[in-house]
Amino acid sequence: MNSRHANQNKTEKGRAKQVDAAVQAIMAARRIVLAGHVNPDGDTLGCILALAHALTGMGKEVTVLSSDGVPDIYDWLPGAGLIRNGSPRRDFDLAVVCDAGNLDRVGASIRPIMESAPCLIDIDHHVADGVFGSIRILDSSAAATAEIVWKLILALQKATGSVLATRDVAECLMTGLITDTGSFRFLNVTPRTFALAARLERLGAVPAPIVDLVFENRTYGGVKLLGRALDSLQMTADGKVAWAHVTVQDFTDVSAVDAETEGIVNHVRAIKGVQVGILFREVPDKQVRVSLRARNGADVNRIANVFGGGGHVLAAGCSVEPPLKDVERAVVAETVRQLNESR
Amino acid sequence: MNSRHANQNKTEKGRAKQVDAAVQAIMAARRIVLAGHVNPDGDTLGCILALAHALTGMGKEVTVLSSDGVPDIYDWLPGAGLIRNGSPRRDFDLAVVCDAGNLDRVGASIRPIMESAPCLIDIDHHVADGVFGSIRILDSSAAATAEIVWKLILALQKATGSVLATRDVAECLMTGLITDTGSFRFLNVTPRTFALAARLERLGAVPAPIVDLVFENRTYGGVKLLGRALDSLQMTADGKVAWAHVTVQDFTDVSAVDAETEGIVNHVRAIKGVQVGILFREVPDKQVRVSLRARNGADVNRIANVFGGGGHVLAAGCSVEPPLKDVERAVVAETVRQLNESR
Repeated sequence: MNSRHANQNKTEKGRAKQVDAAVQAIMAARRIVLAGHVNPDGDTLGCILALAHALTGMGKEVTVLSSDGVPDIYDWLPGAGLIRNGSPRRDFDLAVVCDAGNLDRVGASIRPIMESAPCLIDIDHHVADGVFGSIRILDSSAAATAEIVWKLILALQKATGSVLATRDVAECLMTGLITDTGSFRFLNVTPRTFALAARLERLGAVPAPIVDLVFENRTYGGVKLLGRALDSLQMTADGKVAWAHVTVQDFTDVSAVDAETEGIVNHVRAIKGVQVGILFREVPDKQVRVSLRARNGADVNRIANVFGGGGHVLAAGCSVEPPLKDVERAVVAETVRQLNESR
Repeated sequence: MNSRHANQNKTEKGRAKQVDAAVQAIMAARRIVLAGHVNPDGDTLGCILALAHALTGMGKEVTVLSSDGVPDIYDWLPGAGLIRNGSPRRDFDLAVVCDAGNLDRVGASIRPIMESAPCLIDIDHHVADGVFGSIRILDSSAAATAEIVWKLILALQKATGSVLATRDVAECLMTGLITDTGSFRFLNVTPRTFALAARLERLGAVPAPIVDLVFENRTYGGVKLLGRALDSLQMTADGKVAWAHVTVQDFTDVSAVDAETEGIVNHVRAIKGVQVGILFREVPDKQVRVSLRARNGADVNRIANVFGGGGHVLAAGCSVEPPLKDVERAVVAETVRQLNESR
């Protein structure tokens, strides 16, 4: 990270300056392109769609991109139909990336589109290596990027004098809060998270139906896949690390796809005494995908870093060359090593 | 319900009067007895303990009663050690019951203790038949009784000029919010619920460890059992009925006990389009236990009734003579029959 920017973003005041710069850039732009990260979740989609609603409300011409489109469980998000997985255009005045961690994670075909714009804004609560853009609104204390986008939308509302914080915006951002906090269950939840949830619900974003759509609307194959994964559960002798896997065979047997593995790792972490829960996914012709979740002081970002991945302290991921068995052995061993080291 | 009281409680203003009356009664009392309901949950325990902390802070002599004591998952609540399951004393100046629904639900041995006090306060978000007491602070719009107790504690703080809303109080009330809303997932969550959560977290009540203690403390065997059960998942052709089972062999293989099946049926019901989810448990030398969960208008109480069981519309159960396969066939067939009939 560029140290000047890093310092600017370490304080509330520094962040406020970046928000001001973003407001100026948005006011000056006509054609704006927004993008989230590959394998999108409710926070990245909620953020780009909330911004799309606000910017459209300001009369901007908005293009919304997601390399992997919109998974079924998020297809009800207000504005989901606007999302495209690419664009031939290279005439954008401004590009905004939400929740990506680094610019590669917008996807190989979308990265050049974002880089083609004269100004690029990075909005994120992931603040490890790989921040980017000429304007960076970063806040690792935010439970979800939705919290940061909310501040930007409020600032835009103030600058324009128009009502931009609509019910659609609220539903998109509530979805970001709910998915990134496991419905207010994770350690990243702050009083600010709850206060924002209160404001969003006052705007009409009722959490229960969103929770139902995101967490209680699994497919038949997805639930069977959860069963397969948890049946493969293993744990270290001291009970601090637990892991499970989903194999290519499992995906085939139950007719499920990779997106349906979301949330499985939380079950692995929910075992009494477990500090790190890991899910390994064997995807055909690709690297093994590893999702790590921590609690009780463990830092899974550091573990993911060792394998070229990243994320944050409580949730991180990486992709490692197969075979699955070797990946499991290596990642579990590194996890045990780091937990022992940090005692 | 006494209609005068009912009317008084229908408005914010009416409730404020009842809170004032409760403050006066508490200020005037020296010996106060508090009680929750039988088979206690996090809301009833959180409320009586939060009040116990506040009243002790006011110099009152406090007795805290729970007919069924304190379940293991709540034994870490600040002040849990104060709770007794009875008292020989009958010299209390004031009795306060939280979250009970009706006075019988404090338990047969505790009811006379509460009735022996010259003044009885009923604090509850259950406002059906059976409200009681000379002072009634009732609010069916509160997600948890904790929301109502918070208002009373704030009023006591104002009246006494002492700091009563401590971290202990906040942790007790946060536990009430979390348990009664399924960690902010249910339809009862209002902006006020979130706003209170923000205030409680500012006082030091971090939700994640509480969620961990209440919801995320499954055993290794319990999670593996969930895996086994979901791997057995089946569904009718129209996708409206889904079911899974746990066999004697499963219990043995993963070293789990019947209590660890709790919650499995909710996963079965969480499948998109499913109206009735069923879990069958094969318990050694006993009848097959059947748990039914409904949504989208199905009534599982009627289904359970056919097999000599019962419950309510959304959750019911029955026990049926083995073998498992026959029980599955019969209960699924009856479920399909009733769903078709009610169309």
